[in-house]
Amino acid sequence: MQEQSVEIEKLLRAIEAKDQELFLELASHFHYADLADIYEDLNDEDREFFANALGPERFAEIITDLPASIVEESIDRFDPEEQREILDQVSDDDRVDLLQDVSHQTREKLLDLVEDDDIDITRTLLKYGENTAGGRMTTAFGKISLGMTVKDAIEVLRKNHSDSETLSRIFVTDDQDHLIGRIRFRDLVFNDQNTRIDDIYRPCDHYILASADQEEAAQMFSKYDLFVLPVVDEYDRLLGIITYDDALEIIEEESTEDIEKMAGVSGESSEETYINTAVVTHFKRRFPWVIGLAFISIASGYVMMSFGGVLTRFFMLSLFLPMVVASGGNTGGQASMMVIRAMALGELDNYSVLKIALKELRIGLTLGLAVGCSMALFTFTIAPMLIHQPLPEGFSYLKFALSVTAALTAQILSSTMLGALLPIIARKIRIDPAVVAAPAITSIVDISGMLIYFSTAKLFLLS
Amino acid sequence: MQEQSVEIEKLLRAIEAKDQELFLELASHFHYADLADIYEDLNDEDREFFANALGPERFAEIITDLPASIVEESIDRFDPEEQREILDQVSDDDRVDLLQDVSHQTREKLLDLVEDDDIDITRTLLKYGENTAGGRMTTAFGKISLGMTVKDAIEVLRKNHSDSETLSRIFVTDDQDHLIGRIRFRDLVFNDQNTRIDDIYRPCDHYILASADQEEAAQMFSKYDLFVLPVVDEYDRLLGIITYDDALEIIEEESTEDIEKMAGVSGESSEETYINTAVVTHFKRRFPWVIGLAFISIASGYVMMSFGGVLTRFFMLSLFLPMVVASGGNTGGQASMMVIRAMALGELDNYSVLKIALKELRIGLTLGLAVGCSMALFTFTIAPMLIHQPLPEGFSYLKFALSVTAALTAQILSSTMLGALLPIIARKIRIDPAVVAAPAITSIVDISGMLIYFSTAKLFLLS
Repeated sequence: MQEQSVEIEKLLRAIEAKDQELFLELASHFHYADLADIYEDLNDEDREFFANALGPERFAEIITDLPASIVEESIDRFDPEEQREILDQVSDDDRVDLLQDVSHQTREKLLDLVEDDDIDITRTLLKYGENTAGGRMTTAFGKISLGMTVKDAIEVLRKNHSDSETLSRIFVTDDQDHLIGRIRFRDLVFNDQNTRIDDIYRPCDHYILASADQEEAAQMFSKYDLFVLPVVDEYDRLLGIITYDDALEIIEEESTEDIEKMAGVSGESSEETYINTAVVTHFKRRFPWVIGLAFISIASGYVMMSFGGVLTRFFMLSLFLPMVVASGGNTGGQASMMVIRAMALGELDNYSVLKIALKELRIGLTLGLAVGCSMALFTFTIAPMLIHQPLPEGFSYLKFALSVTAALTAQILSSTMLGALLPIIARKIRIDPAVVAAPAITSIVDISGMLIYFSTAKLFLLS
Repeated sequence: MQEQSVEIEKLLRAIEAKDQELFLELASHFHYADLADIYEDLNDEDREFFANALGPERFAEIITDLPASIVEESIDRFDPEEQREILDQVSDDDRVDLLQDVSHQTREKLLDLVEDDDIDITRTLLKYGENTAGGRMTTAFGKISLGMTVKDAIEVLRKNHSDSETLSRIFVTDDQDHLIGRIRFRDLVFNDQNTRIDDIYRPCDHYILASADQEEAAQMFSKYDLFVLPVVDEYDRLLGIITYDDALEIIEEESTEDIEKMAGVSGESSEETYINTAVVTHFKRRFPWVIGLAFISIASGYVMMSFGGVLTRFFMLSLFLPMVVASGGNTGGQASMMVIRAMALGELDNYSVLKIALKELRIGLTLGLAVGCSMALFTFTIAPMLIHQPLPEGFSYLKFALSVTAALTAQILSSTMLGALLPIIARKIRIDPAVVAAPAITSIVDISGMLIYFSTAKLFLLS
């Protein structure tokens, strides 16, 4: 790592000095993923130098690794002839990604530049949504037909192998392109040349519909340790493949999205790094949640204000108010995150709501009682040292302890249940479960916390 | 999916009926990952039938997919001779995982059963921590030496290929086992038989030290779209490889861990599904955070209690108190999650704390002012409708609005900064950044929120 940062420094100095020869020499030692990172951090003038110095052929590798938001300005740095070269260089799936990242107008212009050989497949792939299996697949893979011998098959693959992302899995189709099975390249090599493919192929246990969600594809990769996943249409015709590196990307994207939603950050992740995302973009993604939750919190305030009488009389209620309310937020947040993550990993597909509710009921009850009892102890021992004012009439530490413990247990139990069940209900009514993650749950159980705390206090202290 | 659940139903009925013949027939159509899921959901008696019916050879596939917590009881279902067969069947890295999942005592017993051929490599791999690159690697891979011809190489690989997890990447070493380069299987096949390996291998740009963190390995896979990553010792000697499916597993594990820590769930994730994790385990992982944060919240309560005078006089302060406090928690939580995720993805390695602080300063200020101004508007328009009691002396809605807006801006700005910087500071002093994620940040900024809100109110309303 140390060495690499020295190399990056050198490259940046070459860019600074606009020394094209030195830049190209240094750049040739970098992986395109590293070059993409470096390009992303440059200012406009340096990006212009970088792109032109590298030229369309090498920039084509880099553009596939750039965040969506800077793809358009990057391709605009080239003239149409160079753009045509970029579009020709990239693989089918990368070309489609690129076209999906630019404005409608630019897309039409670029589509006119796509070579005749590629235009049909490009238009076909563009039809699938960006987040579907079809939108992720590539059409470059090893394909052989029933009826061939091993010798025929190797010949076919040798002819086409420069085009294929991978030869490690090869698929067998019938004459109508239906997916029949798979074969490993080594099976071809280690078998006799005259062996018939029909005798050595294996069935394909795992494949996915082009219209399926990309997350489903990623789950299949991780569950079955897949290397490639064939993508078929509704007639089981082989359309393309998704490879393990796409699965890695999907899992990272989806985890980031889940984490962001759970943190109350809305909108699609921009693929840009945290630092390169503009302040205004950060603002736009955070503000809706913050303002929405602020209004929900006013409801808590309204409840608190209406119990002003009790609070004024028993001022020491303040001491535990934030704690009881926050414990609901914390336990509700935990429960919702556990359930949302379990759903994202596909763990809860076969379980009833009742089973999950029962589980959280037991967890919530033990948590509530444990925290409640700890706080009862605190009320008897340390609380008296914190309360300096004279005690009001009708107050006793026993009543106070009972009230706090009862309120805590009720608040934690109800928040845990709510935290676990709201995401499940959200999914049932087809809302993204992550919307009711920790921040939303916290704001909601703050209201019930206020109600529970003051009602319990009234019950114990005013009776 | 529909069809599969019918098949699962049939299998469960066969287990219920203890019909071994039917069970084996049905089980043969399942992928071992699915069988592992089914086994995990069974009760003890059914697990016993399942394991014995399947026998050690087939159960060996399944045991590698079971959560750590049930590995020991599962292997205990077999007698030593069968255990020996299981240990012989699994691959090196799976055997080591298995041995790491059982108690010390059982591990010693099982180590005695490992075949002589495998014992050295097993003991070597056991030395690496479970979460290091070395702990994840397998030693079964295609290896050829400098000086061979393509024909020699294919001969060597053909002899050993049944042992290798993958032949799609083959590594070239010198006579002292130093990693020299890599070669693709197809390069061997498509080249002349007499070509020398020395002329066709490519350099290995990416490799990792056995002692490195597994997360670092996973980041390399996703950044460079790797398929395998060679693992070397400090003298650059090739020890083993990590494959893409391990990377998928690492990324899922680490994301789950991050999400759990961010939700205030402590301890290591058990690999068990949410539903199969015992209530007591859930309790143990959630309680420490809940009780710790509860005590921090008492500090908020203490601050609130000490401002009892202001609150009693200006009872309407209650209306916005939860909102101001919670807005700090929400914005601080967002900032911390964004920064923690960016760190996990390796995005912040080359940036100074100052740059991140400046970014969050600007985001916090815009967020604070935007929410503050919205709430000023609310104070003038809707708040008067909610306050039914007579207004105390010295109160005016203008002062109230100014006070709330100032407090909100200060609270959101300080919470955003704190949320972004605490994880960075934590990492600098070598504490896991996720420890200061949303729940901790929320509890901390609750205290400052109380202070800011009441101090501002005093300043504006009592002057």
